Amino acid sequence: MRKLLVIGIGAGDPGQLTVEAVDALNAVDIFFVLDKGQAAADLTVARRQLCDRFIGPGRYREVLVADPPRDRVAADYPEAVRNWRDERAELLEQVIAAELGDDGLGGFLVWGDPSLYDGTVRVLDTIAARGALAIEYDVIPGISSVQALAARHRVTLNRVAGAVQITTGRRLAEGLPSGVDDVVVMLDANLTCKAYRDQEIDIYWGAYLGTEDEALVAGRLDEVVDEIERLRQDLRRRKGWIMDTYLLRRNP
Amino acid sequence: MRKLLVIGIGAGDPGQLTVEAVDALNAVDIFFVLDKGQAAADLTVARRQLCDRFIGPGRYREVLVADPPRDRVAADYPEAVRNWRDERAELLEQVIAAELGDDGLGGFLVWGDPSLYDGTVRVLDTIAARGALAIEYDVIPGISSVQALAARHRVTLNRVAGAVQITTGRRLAEGLPSGVDDVVVMLDANLTCKAYRDQEIDIYWGAYLGTEDEALVAGRLDEVVDEIERLRQDLRRRKGWIMDTYLLRRNP
Repeated sequence: MRKLLVIGIGAGDPGQLTVEAVDALNAVDIFFVLDKGQAAADLTVARRQLCDRFIGPGRYREVLVADPPRDRVAADYPEAVRNWRDERAELLEQVIAAELGDDGLGGFLVWGDPSLYDGTVRVLDTIAARGALAIEYDVIPGISSVQALAARHRVTLNRVAGAVQITTGRRLAEGLPSGVDDVVVMLDANLTCKAYRDQEIDIYWGAYLGTEDEALVAGRLDEVVDEIERLRQDLRRRKGWIMDTYLLRRNP
Repeated sequence: MRKLLVIGIGAGDPGQLTVEAVDALNAVDIFFVLDKGQAAADLTVARRQLCDRFIGPGRYREVLVADPPRDRVAADYPEAVRNWRDERAELLEQVIAAELGDDGLGGFLVWGDPSLYDGTVRVLDTIAARGALAIEYDVIPGISSVQALAARHRVTLNRVAGAVQITTGRRLAEGLPSGVDDVVVMLDANLTCKAYRDQEIDIYWGAYLGTEDEALVAGRLDEVVDEIERLRQDLRRRKGWIMDTYLLRRNP
């Protein structure tokens, strides 16, 4: 049976790879790369640097799988994501069948941790459920950008005996979550927290965590959010894309 | 100035150490071990195995710091934890001053990730804020038991476009969090989710993740929670302690 490994490779710093991830990199026959558009060129370079460092230049094989186009303006966002995932699963199934030998080991390198806002596990679930191609797969956890953020700011995510919620920019736009005062926001293209500057909130913000472009800002939301916005715009202009995340800490 | 590293060492599997954590282990002059009572003996053995494997037997130095007793039946739980942390900070400050040279590098090994339900960062914050001993410190993220749980069950923590909350058994006893259908529960001595067996919830449970004693159960809460309870009791009896965590997934 064809076996696949979903390998978390950390938030950006090669030092964040785990020992088991390095072993996995060296065991994989073919890496399948799900192309992520915008940031793809830079990320592809970074991924190859990882493979060069931990496997050796020229000692690994990559197959690029172009992503089907995704309806980014759909009214029903979850439905659009599901449709896109089904198309992606079909395409990937074909590529795996064509490229990976019957008892081969394929690998997927996932930035951060495969358990948070990444679709690879669900795409493989979909392939397994379709039943047309027999596959087995395992997941190797990686350091997420959430953990890298907390580590770089030297804060904990939860306060004593407290809860923490990890959510998206889209959800934050609908309001601050209730019943929880520590909120990590991911996938926020618009720095949605600006809307809450009138509240007693501290923010711990980070972009390109673990890379040489890393940027960090922390402080009272109302005092630093304009600085973060300017910095985000500058960085995005310079690199062509931005990846950032932040922790909001409500002061009761 | 004395420098300290808070090093996340993963949920139990030595393979979950990151490359930078391994480098850090090898750079540290003295490890300060905050004794954790109950599970301490087993965890001390596991920690030494890690150091033996990644540094080399006899090539590291440990100083045990006995924890001050903690008021576990206090009515005001956060207050009790804060008092205990202050005592712990004073004690640790004395040990660091006595044992670590002026430009020495001290290390703390933290199971899982230092950002989730671990007090080491806050203890160092407290020492730094007291100002009596000049210290600098950095945090190295590690794979948390939450990520190990998701990886072993091959599930994601969030669903498409969804949020996930990480909370404690104490908080879960007050009710399921509102506005979020994916909830990770930690520090739950009583399998509090039993109270919600009448609801449409799936559970992904794991104990001693990443170790040879690892146990995993997944299914509909009402169908598997009794099995989990029996298994927990057996495992706790056999080892004398248990560390487990679980994801609750509400089906809308």
